Amino acid sequence: MSRLQTEEQAVDSEGDSSLHRRNEEGTQSSHRMLGFSDALLSIIATVMILPVTHTEISPEQQFDKSIQKLLATRIAVYLMTFLIVTVAWTAHTRLFQVVGKIDDTLALLNLACMMTITLLPYTFSLMVTFPDVPLGIFLFCVCVIAIGSVQAMIVGYAFHFPHLLNPQIQCSTHRDLSRRHILHLVLRGPALCFVAAVFSLFFFPLSYLLMVTVIFLPHISKATTWCKDKFMGQRESPAHNMEPFSIDLHAPLSKERVEAFSDGVYAIVATLLILDICEDNVPDPKDVQEKFSGSLVAALGAYGPQFLAYFGSFATVGLLWFAHHSLFLHVRKATQTMGLLNILSLAFVGGLPLAYQQTSAFARQPHDELERVRVSCAIIFFASIFQFAIWTTALLHQTETLQPAVQFGGQEHAFMFAKLALYPCASLLAFAATCLLSRFSTAIFHLMQISVPFAFLLLRLLVRLALAGLQVLRGLWPHHPQQDQSEPETQSQLLPDPC
Amino acid sequence: MSRLQTEEQAVDSEGDSSLHRRNEEGTQSSHRMLGFSDALLSIIATVMILPVTHTEISPEQQFDKSIQKLLATRIAVYLMTFLIVTVAWTAHTRLFQVVGKIDDTLALLNLACMMTITLLPYTFSLMVTFPDVPLGIFLFCVCVIAIGSVQAMIVGYAFHFPHLLNPQIQCSTHRDLSRRHILHLVLRGPALCFVAAVFSLFFFPLSYLLMVTVIFLPHISKATTWCKDKFMGQRESPAHNMEPFSIDLHAPLSKERVEAFSDGVYAIVATLLILDICEDNVPDPKDVQEKFSGSLVAALGAYGPQFLAYFGSFATVGLLWFAHHSLFLHVRKATQTMGLLNILSLAFVGGLPLAYQQTSAFARQPHDELERVRVSCAIIFFASIFQFAIWTTALLHQTETLQPAVQFGGQEHAFMFAKLALYPCASLLAFAATCLLSRFSTAIFHLMQISVPFAFLLLRLLVRLALAGLQVLRGLWPHHPQQDQSEPETQSQLLPDPC
Repeated sequence: MSRLQTEEQAVDSEGDSSLHRRNEEGTQSSHRMLGFSDALLSIIATVMILPVTHTEISPEQQFDKSIQKLLATRIAVYLMTFLIVTVAWTAHTRLFQVVGKIDDTLALLNLACMMTITLLPYTFSLMVTFPDVPLGIFLFCVCVIAIGSVQAMIVGYAFHFPHLLNPQIQCSTHRDLSRRHILHLVLRGPALCFVAAVFSLFFFPLSYLLMVTVIFLPHISKATTWCKDKFMGQRESPAHNMEPFSIDLHAPLSKERVEAFSDGVYAIVATLLILDICEDNVPDPKDVQEKFSGSLVAALGAYGPQFLAYFGSFATVGLLWFAHHSLFLHVRKATQTMGLLNILSLAFVGGLPLAYQQTSAFARQPHDELERVRVSCAIIFFASIFQFAIWTTALLHQTETLQPAVQFGGQEHAFMFAKLALYPCASLLAFAATCLLSRFSTAIFHLMQISVPFAFLLLRLLVRLALAGLQVLRGLWPHHPQQDQSEPETQSQLLPDPC
Repeated sequence: MSRLQTEEQAVDSEGDSSLHRRNEEGTQSSHRMLGFSDALLSIIATVMILPVTHTEISPEQQFDKSIQKLLATRIAVYLMTFLIVTVAWTAHTRLFQVVGKIDDTLALLNLACMMTITLLPYTFSLMVTFPDVPLGIFLFCVCVIAIGSVQAMIVGYAFHFPHLLNPQIQCSTHRDLSRRHILHLVLRGPALCFVAAVFSLFFFPLSYLLMVTVIFLPHISKATTWCKDKFMGQRESPAHNMEPFSIDLHAPLSKERVEAFSDGVYAIVATLLILDICEDNVPDPKDVQEKFSGSLVAALGAYGPQFLAYFGSFATVGLLWFAHHSLFLHVRKATQTMGLLNILSLAFVGGLPLAYQQTSAFARQPHDELERVRVSCAIIFFASIFQFAIWTTALLHQTETLQPAVQFGGQEHAFMFAKLALYPCASLLAFAATCLLSRFSTAIFHLMQISVPFAFLLLRLLVRLALAGLQVLRGLWPHHPQQDQSEPETQSQLLPDPC
């Protein structure tokens, strides 16, 4: 459907005939508005890691209980925000799979919806800081109800002016059914929150329970669907095919929007790193005069490990994006399970500034460097292993979800495997090495961060060598599809002349 | 060309025939990589406003010289970063108008380029903190040379494997000429910086002069082109049409990338606001016990003005995005002048967190609220007046740059005028009102922030009323195209049945 939108937009911006403009008057392609919403939501989801990394721990101050509590509070707010924003984003994706075009009123309603979503992190901060006061949970419920009302207004408006709907639904005889379906989807959470808000006034522990239900509801229903799918065969699809024009609530997510949301997370994470460098690593003019007798180079030399940590962290974020990009180039459609795994991966990617801060703190607090290296390795491992899991899950239904090149036996299969397995292996190796050689943990970690980018550059060569080695070992290996790979130069000769 | 890419991508993800895949092997549409680069660059450009707004000024501390110097330093870093990143972004846009497709090597080279760009803000911090030490400017030059080298490698690689090039250039007989053109464009700045780096070792004031030249070079050449265009007629276009297949370095910017970059800036600005709310406006549990006798509601009440400032600022950012979105919906192509005005507008949009911080500080330091309100009004005024200027500039060449609906006499002309003129008028009015009624400046500002969103909602009605009023006044107004506007309900009847 998203591709359809893009094509429509291309027609929109090209179509100059006045008749065409007349019909389109006031309605617009939703493409750019969705891109803006994706950027906004991905940044909100991730930016709450900043208070975590900016928690000031002065060297003389011990890592005491109050600091621990503050850190735990902020990490909890980050995780809850990330989770709830992804839930809101999924609902938003569903909603605009039904609403195909927008007009000014819908654009303004969407902005109102975004504004309400941005308030959710604040309610979490209140909840976590004052766990015994029901006001936080009450405000959270009010926010969710407000979001639900705005989304219900969007649904109502779009069904009132059906030319705004997705053409499939516009033509459907089951349009009323679709409306009821999508309204149910949009108002399910707010209805539970209304109950929670009422309970928060006299028995708030129950409100917390209801809130957890609201947050995890979509994920739980996804998991059960997956289990059913797995153990009872694909019973779902035919049931849905019976109603070809009604909205399919179990349809795959729009691949374009999954990509846009992920890009936003990677981009903001890469940028938060330089913010820390600029704020923390510019020496004070007085210090330079007193400690380094005016030599700025010497003063900067003291920050050496932190610059190394910056390069390493940026390379990690960049290469994880690269692996994600390579994978999604070969993904045909993203199922709900793949979407969930992607979100889990992104949550750990969002934690990378924490890994950076941990490793850049080496110079200041060398006594607990082993723990810091291990935390960093664990964050990188989980971010990359969930990426690997996306591919594994996609392989289960490979004909539907993947391009032929990366399916079992495809030309790019081994290469994709190597790309996605590189970071999990490297971080696991580094973790294991710190257990054996705990005195050299810093050196090991830096070695890993520097060597992995080079491994990526040489990956195609390495994979070929490994496959050739396997071939020699087995001796009787049959003709392997990997040999079909031709050099780029040969490719360009194969290309039909486009001129 | 960008539209072409989108369509190619649509074909890419659909095309399953093995022949198609064979030809495409290893090459990918650059669409997503460009989106990611746009997001990254727009966030880097804007995020340097955070150190400005986070400058701690405790109430007992006077606004003394050291604080003033720190603030000025940070604002200078923000402006310089914004400017240099937009220059780098423009060069990147030009480069990937030549390189149409990418492969893994180009994706990795692009990541290296992004990493070098992220280091630029740090060199500015050094330069501004130590203006007398040549190290900052030397590092800046090294960064620019590194960026130039990576971009030259991208150009060399793409021209070595011509199937990666834009099809137009691929088929051109002037391919070598194009390569020289684009290499000149990419290496012009780095060459100047090399000279600056040499000078920084013995006479660094000259280096600063060269740096300013590097930053402003594209803008100066744009301005001269515009002046020539304006006063000597469109002499440029025919000259370029003589070489239809060589790269046109004065071609309009890719509209899609201008939109993506702008969306990134608006999204990060909207998100930085909530970060401040979550860090500053969660009361301390001890304070609540002591000062408000345990009542969280009372404690939150004290933050009232700051929440109002948050809503106002978010609405401002959102509605400025809405105006930008509406304008670019009707833009056919973005000329260089429009691009420059857009960047100026975005630089002020990036300053909006500062306006928020100024207005949210009312509660704490009420003695200088008049100055704070005026600073906020000025930031909003400049952000919106440059948007208005984009449209005015577009109207000068309206048949090329705009859709018919918003040209002079078009159906949407008056409405677009009202949309873009609303914020400049409102902020100017508020500024004027604070001069006359300086005692009520806070109330006036809040009133403006709350009334403008409602004005946007009712804008179509207001414009119609105003036009009707004009019609009555003039009496002999001829049939006006604005009357062609039909209600959405009528529109849907006009639509051909899509089913």
